[in-house]
Amino acid sequence: MTSKQAEAVKRHWVAARLAMTRPDAEHPDDESWGDLTAEPRGVDYIEAEASGLPAMWLVPKRCVQDRVLLCLHGGGFGGGSIYTHRKMFGHLAKATGVRALILDYRLAPSHTHPAQVDDVADAYQWLLDQGIESAHIAFTGDSSGGGLAITAQLRARERGLPLPAAAMPFSPWTDMEATGESYESNEERDPFFYAETVRMLAATFLGEDGDPRDPLASPLYADLSGLGPIYIQVGGDETLLDDARMLAEHAEKVGVVVVLDVFPGMQHTFQMAAGRAPEADDAIRRMAGWIDPRLGL
Amino acid sequence: MTSKQAEAVKRHWVAARLAMTRPDAEHPDDESWGDLTAEPRGVDYIEAEASGLPAMWLVPKRCVQDRVLLCLHGGGFGGGSIYTHRKMFGHLAKATGVRALILDYRLAPSHTHPAQVDDVADAYQWLLDQGIESAHIAFTGDSSGGGLAITAQLRARERGLPLPAAAMPFSPWTDMEATGESYESNEERDPFFYAETVRMLAATFLGEDGDPRDPLASPLYADLSGLGPIYIQVGGDETLLDDARMLAEHAEKVGVVVVLDVFPGMQHTFQMAAGRAPEADDAIRRMAGWIDPRLGL
Repeated sequence: MTSKQAEAVKRHWVAARLAMTRPDAEHPDDESWGDLTAEPRGVDYIEAEASGLPAMWLVPKRCVQDRVLLCLHGGGFGGGSIYTHRKMFGHLAKATGVRALILDYRLAPSHTHPAQVDDVADAYQWLLDQGIESAHIAFTGDSSGGGLAITAQLRARERGLPLPAAAMPFSPWTDMEATGESYESNEERDPFFYAETVRMLAATFLGEDGDPRDPLASPLYADLSGLGPIYIQVGGDETLLDDARMLAEHAEKVGVVVVLDVFPGMQHTFQMAAGRAPEADDAIRRMAGWIDPRLGL
Repeated sequence: MTSKQAEAVKRHWVAARLAMTRPDAEHPDDESWGDLTAEPRGVDYIEAEASGLPAMWLVPKRCVQDRVLLCLHGGGFGGGSIYTHRKMFGHLAKATGVRALILDYRLAPSHTHPAQVDDVADAYQWLLDQGIESAHIAFTGDSSGGGLAITAQLRARERGLPLPAAAMPFSPWTDMEATGESYESNEERDPFFYAETVRMLAATFLGEDGDPRDPLASPLYADLSGLGPIYIQVGGDETLLDDARMLAEHAEKVGVVVVLDVFPGMQHTFQMAAGRAPEADDAIRRMAGWIDPRLGL
């Protein structure tokens, strides 16, 4: 049974849909997405510049300093920020016991693909330049940031950089064409992510000449062989459920170690209710438990 | 005319009243008070221990390091925290261009008066011990914290400490007996602070043998002569309007320099809408403009 607190995530998406269809409706601004999340407490927030981009260090008290989660926020490549996701990634950093860096990668429509994978690869390079070993870095992210947690690795590999230890995409958006069957089977459960909406977001992200099957945009068309282990979380009620499943299948086919964790009854990026909803806290704990040994902790 | 964004403050108090009278109603938790405030951005948040108490440094980028606002949050002496008020005081620190320290002083009912004035005086002593000059420190706070911005100075003086440069209480709670005429004249405009509610909060704060006219609890009964200048802000629609007026009159009588700034149509601690409501941003700007020269900036 879905907790009362997790239902707040669904209300968020209902409000977002309403705001999209009725621009005059009173609706939360982008920043209020983060209001779903309780303060993790005991985590410091320090803004920084990473490879020339705005970023924010999340530093849990008494954490290990030389392990880093590179955190890629969601928002359809056109929204979200270090501020909306500060608290959620703060919970994850605290549970994991390591530092986290959230990156404000450039957003569409001002900046279209591949600006985003370039920015994340730049930030990763910047982390390596700071002396953090690749084996001590994991990529994580929700929704569009979940896709980036995979595609940015490919970009980094193109550049000859060593790959990070692992990736933890959650509610990842991996298919710019929105072909998953879950767009139909979950249509009545997911109040926001209709296939049409997702294709509209993809068109804005890809720009005029963009190809929705570009492997750096839709990792389902990429060669994922050689990537480190991937732990995927996804809500059972979201239309992007198949984006997660297809990513898992596609990666497993080439021998990548994948764990797919479906949370029944949960919405897209339900982890934003961390500190409030038991399902979100459980998800955060599972991520921390999975990643710690992979970072050598 | 009240801005749409400032009306969110009133809705907050309506919800708080509802939560008080109908404990089963769905209501925001204490922490969500801070959701009224936009992220100030460009301010780092670093948790610390100040004289053994939880505290949080708010450090605006490129701020002056050796001037400090000691920030005392509101919440009727029984609520509020470094988390609820992080963003609001962050706006003030950023506008002022100095560091700020929010203190988690001990709360009622577990800790009754004078635990709170003692804690603030301790934290002030701690700041002096860090090498910050008294002339470079200002006390500020909202509601119960506004009262503390005055009473803690008296406690500090008792201990022989030098006084801070100035104080900026806003929507200060200064009268534990709730005798102000504004409790009647604004009763229909203020959805939360009925005289009866305020007396109940006072009883909890003062404890069994507490005296509501103790000068360290109600500064209206204190000798304020010799205090530095005081800038008071208050909402024109709040029942605590007279608490601000009486404090201003009482301080002026003994020669303290006082500025009282009444914001028409505004609710209790409307500054929590900083970054969203123009009235709140105006209030923050006025505080910063007033305090900067008093801190030698």
